[in-house]
Amino acid sequence: MPAPFVRHSEVDVLIIGAGPAGLMCANALANARVDVRIVDQRASKVTTGRGDGISPRTTELLQSYGLAERFLRESCQLHLAAFYNPSSTGGIEFTNRTSDVTAPSVRYPFELALNQGAIQDIFLDSMTPLGVELSKDENELTDPTSYPVRVDEPQEEIVHAKFVVGGDGAHSWIRKQFDVTMDGEQSDSIWGVVDMVAPDTDFPDIRNKTLIRSNHGSVFVIPREQDRTRIYVQLEDKDFINPVTGRPDKEKVGPEQILETAQKSLEPYKLIRKSEFVWWTIYSVGQRVASQFSIKNRVFIAGDACHTHSPKAGQGMNAAINDSHNLGMSSFPVVRGWADMALLSTYESERRKFALDLIAWDKTPLTEQNSDGVSPEHVLKTFQTDFTSGVGIHYQPSIAHGLVLGKRVPPYKFMRAADACPFELQDLLPSDFLFKLLVFTWVESMVTDMQKPESFLKRYSTPGNSRFDIITISKGRKETFNFLRTPLRFFALIGQTSGEKVTQYYGVGPEGALVAVRPDGYVGAIAPLDRVGGLDAYFASFMKITAQA
Amino acid sequence: MPAPFVRHSEVDVLIIGAGPAGLMCANALANARVDVRIVDQRASKVTTGRGDGISPRTTELLQSYGLAERFLRESCQLHLAAFYNPSSTGGIEFTNRTSDVTAPSVRYPFELALNQGAIQDIFLDSMTPLGVELSKDENELTDPTSYPVRVDEPQEEIVHAKFVVGGDGAHSWIRKQFDVTMDGEQSDSIWGVVDMVAPDTDFPDIRNKTLIRSNHGSVFVIPREQDRTRIYVQLEDKDFINPVTGRPDKEKVGPEQILETAQKSLEPYKLIRKSEFVWWTIYSVGQRVASQFSIKNRVFIAGDACHTHSPKAGQGMNAAINDSHNLGMSSFPVVRGWADMALLSTYESERRKFALDLIAWDKTPLTEQNSDGVSPEHVLKTFQTDFTSGVGIHYQPSIAHGLVLGKRVPPYKFMRAADACPFELQDLLPSDFLFKLLVFTWVESMVTDMQKPESFLKRYSTPGNSRFDIITISKGRKETFNFLRTPLRFFALIGQTSGEKVTQYYGVGPEGALVAVRPDGYVGAIAPLDRVGGLDAYFASFMKITAQA
Repeated sequence: MPAPFVRHSEVDVLIIGAGPAGLMCANALANARVDVRIVDQRASKVTTGRGDGISPRTTELLQSYGLAERFLRESCQLHLAAFYNPSSTGGIEFTNRTSDVTAPSVRYPFELALNQGAIQDIFLDSMTPLGVELSKDENELTDPTSYPVRVDEPQEEIVHAKFVVGGDGAHSWIRKQFDVTMDGEQSDSIWGVVDMVAPDTDFPDIRNKTLIRSNHGSVFVIPREQDRTRIYVQLEDKDFINPVTGRPDKEKVGPEQILETAQKSLEPYKLIRKSEFVWWTIYSVGQRVASQFSIKNRVFIAGDACHTHSPKAGQGMNAAINDSHNLGMSSFPVVRGWADMALLSTYESERRKFALDLIAWDKTPLTEQNSDGVSPEHVLKTFQTDFTSGVGIHYQPSIAHGLVLGKRVPPYKFMRAADACPFELQDLLPSDFLFKLLVFTWVESMVTDMQKPESFLKRYSTPGNSRFDIITISKGRKETFNFLRTPLRFFALIGQTSGEKVTQYYGVGPEGALVAVRPDGYVGAIAPLDRVGGLDAYFASFMKITAQA
Repeated sequence: MPAPFVRHSEVDVLIIGAGPAGLMCANALANARVDVRIVDQRASKVTTGRGDGISPRTTELLQSYGLAERFLRESCQLHLAAFYNPSSTGGIEFTNRTSDVTAPSVRYPFELALNQGAIQDIFLDSMTPLGVELSKDENELTDPTSYPVRVDEPQEEIVHAKFVVGGDGAHSWIRKQFDVTMDGEQSDSIWGVVDMVAPDTDFPDIRNKTLIRSNHGSVFVIPREQDRTRIYVQLEDKDFINPVTGRPDKEKVGPEQILETAQKSLEPYKLIRKSEFVWWTIYSVGQRVASQFSIKNRVFIAGDACHTHSPKAGQGMNAAINDSHNLGMSSFPVVRGWADMALLSTYESERRKFALDLIAWDKTPLTEQNSDGVSPEHVLKTFQTDFTSGVGIHYQPSIAHGLVLGKRVPPYKFMRAADACPFELQDLLPSDFLFKLLVFTWVESMVTDMQKPESFLKRYSTPGNSRFDIITISKGRKETFNFLRTPLRFFALIGQTSGEKVTQYYGVGPEGALVAVRPDGYVGAIAPLDRVGGLDAYFASFMKITAQA
């Protein structure tokens, strides 16, 4: 028998795991035309269950990849949050009902619910990796053009990758290969989950996101796509635990028992199942964060592979998608040779901080008041309103206080000056590796300054191959504005009714502002129009000049 | 050689012509699950040119068939209308720029432009008819279950149809078969049209809908999808007329000459073509209306087959689509046995009146002021704002003056009471043959009245097979409204912030109102809640009781 032919192949980024984290990362890089390959150890596809709520910010982010339309079409929208508490006469009683999302600047004022299989359906088939090896050569590790990661695949193929991303779930294989520890603990609470067609009921909030606290434990009701209902039930019975593994055992409980517990907690309301269960599971909550999110900035982990928490925040899917978006758009311009290797460190610093904050929040008990007397509803609202992945210091807040460094650009509907067609500013900030420059009313001197050879605009772009998109935002009325006067490279927008509103919204003063938006849609730097050179230092801190862009 | 096998087949509605009129009619009937078949004499498909603007109302109507999304994606949106006039120093000068659409209740505040091929791409392949014959038996003609129309097809097939619709264009074959005359005259004006990629220009309104009146004749600029520009040019030169046919001759002129005329009219602005012409044509304007729109209510004609006019109103495509929508939704419930044959007469009475009004308007000269001193701009605005196919008398306007008999239900965004999801009321009025009943705050007595055996709701529906959809519109706040109290068959909506706004918008008084909306989305009848019997007479005037619905 002849020796098997071993094929070697090279790829810029190899992704392990075709779940939300891995697929989002693959999608982000494919969007930026980076050579990417995805492999998965699971043989079969997920078709029902799992998944989580998708937050308004995650929907904005999916829109930046052109994916929001399909998510919106297939998902269930959650507009209201309802709360029930124990009644003094036994059973539960209605407490209150509020908008599910109350953030002040929000483009999609609702959460979405969609099963994980539907989310993954848009992506690639999975393959099975066999082994992974990282070069020990420091020179190779620091050279962005080298392929220091080697992955063996079953068909006698060895893949050499510049970078590897592990999005392979809570039991991450790649994390274990590099002995990265998960720090934190397993909580005592055990949860059961059932998905079914919306039941017959006299419970008025069956189609809202509802938190029920009863004397029999907590229950979450989450409406889902295709007229289904998901119910999370806190299980008190320790008999469900397998004494050998210490984990909940699906042999010891079934969906009927989970639903029975929910029915007991919902008294005096009735809940009558009218279909088979679509999906169910049981699990205990681990509240853990990986000790590191990268191994020598060559292998990265994202999503459940680096943080796990309870379902109450509905942040599992969101955190995974945002991890991969951050990694893909903020760090991987390095792959194209546009930025220093050092930029790769921002992933761990930004996203590990987020994960630690998330776990800290997750430990806040929902079943009783906080020590400082704040109600659980208030905590939940605060979380939904303010919990973003925004980091970074406030830089010159006086010239554009509506645009905060390290936070995403808030949505606003402008008109294109050429034809008064409406454009959402966020839709002009696609996730494509390019930096976007927002010019709040251009002036001739700024145009001149930006044309100078020492300007970042000239330093980091070669003719026909720019790393920047320029968008001008002017005051003016659609009836009188002449777009031909704007320098032609600029995509000109005008405020919808009066420019005043726009500048108030973004907090830009009369002296104007030049705003650099990172490829991930977050504000990177802000400079006054008469000192556009202020951005030179910002870009010089990480951007590389290349002979060929 | 054996005698060829002649296949006979039967169809409820046979449509001749796969243009906008025919395809919309086919789509309307397929939507209502009527057995329909479409044939066309053209061998090849239209891929460029033709077509016209799509008005906001037509977009609403396409949405009622679930088609608007694709139209919106593929079309160019026209938001601004601009006007230029002769300058005192020679050439033209900017006069003013306004919103293209100024109607007070408008869901889509813009026109769309899309080439006819793109519109037709969604529909069936064409086939060639050979002959058509209508039965002379009066009993057969008045029996809605009979097949009195016979069409021979080339593959030795004879089609027997209950009804035939001719949407086969200005030179309609079916119209000529029945010797229907076109009344009116050929106007003197000759128009040339060119489509090309948007030219290089210093003309600031190249991406707006623009009317230019110059000393060299009128020019229309219409931006189109895929960054193209269409230019209509009024041609003065009678040399373009073929002396034999009396029609413009494409042998005597080319697109270069048409563009040259436009360039002369646009002085001092420059227009430099930067691509090949995508499409062009030349034509003289016929202003004619067919003497009848139906032959014995068995054969109908729609679109260009029954009316032709100039391009200035941009109503060709709209009129065709609205003809077919009216015919399909208002008249063809007869096919299902739900209504008397007499209902078929409403098509000619409603749509021929519209066509006559359209031609009368089309004769208003654009190149000079009206005799009463009204400017052309004002005339154009009035037309776009008010020209609807609304007919019919005002009936009890005091109880819902925002809903006018014979006019379409204006758009409004409600929340579904069950989960606060937003719904556009028009989206709950799909074109599907069902009458929609809008209940402006239901009361128990009304529910009781509608359950009585003599109520129209019981008379014209069999169990599990209703001809009615019921939508209740209540005052209430999303935080406190309990949708379970609304009778379960009703799809319950609540006003977005306060119910007061809604009832003000639709003009419904505190006593409430029950509104019957026709299957085509137009208001049919209105009754107070304490006299729902008032609708019995309305439905009894045309609706039939059938043993089997």
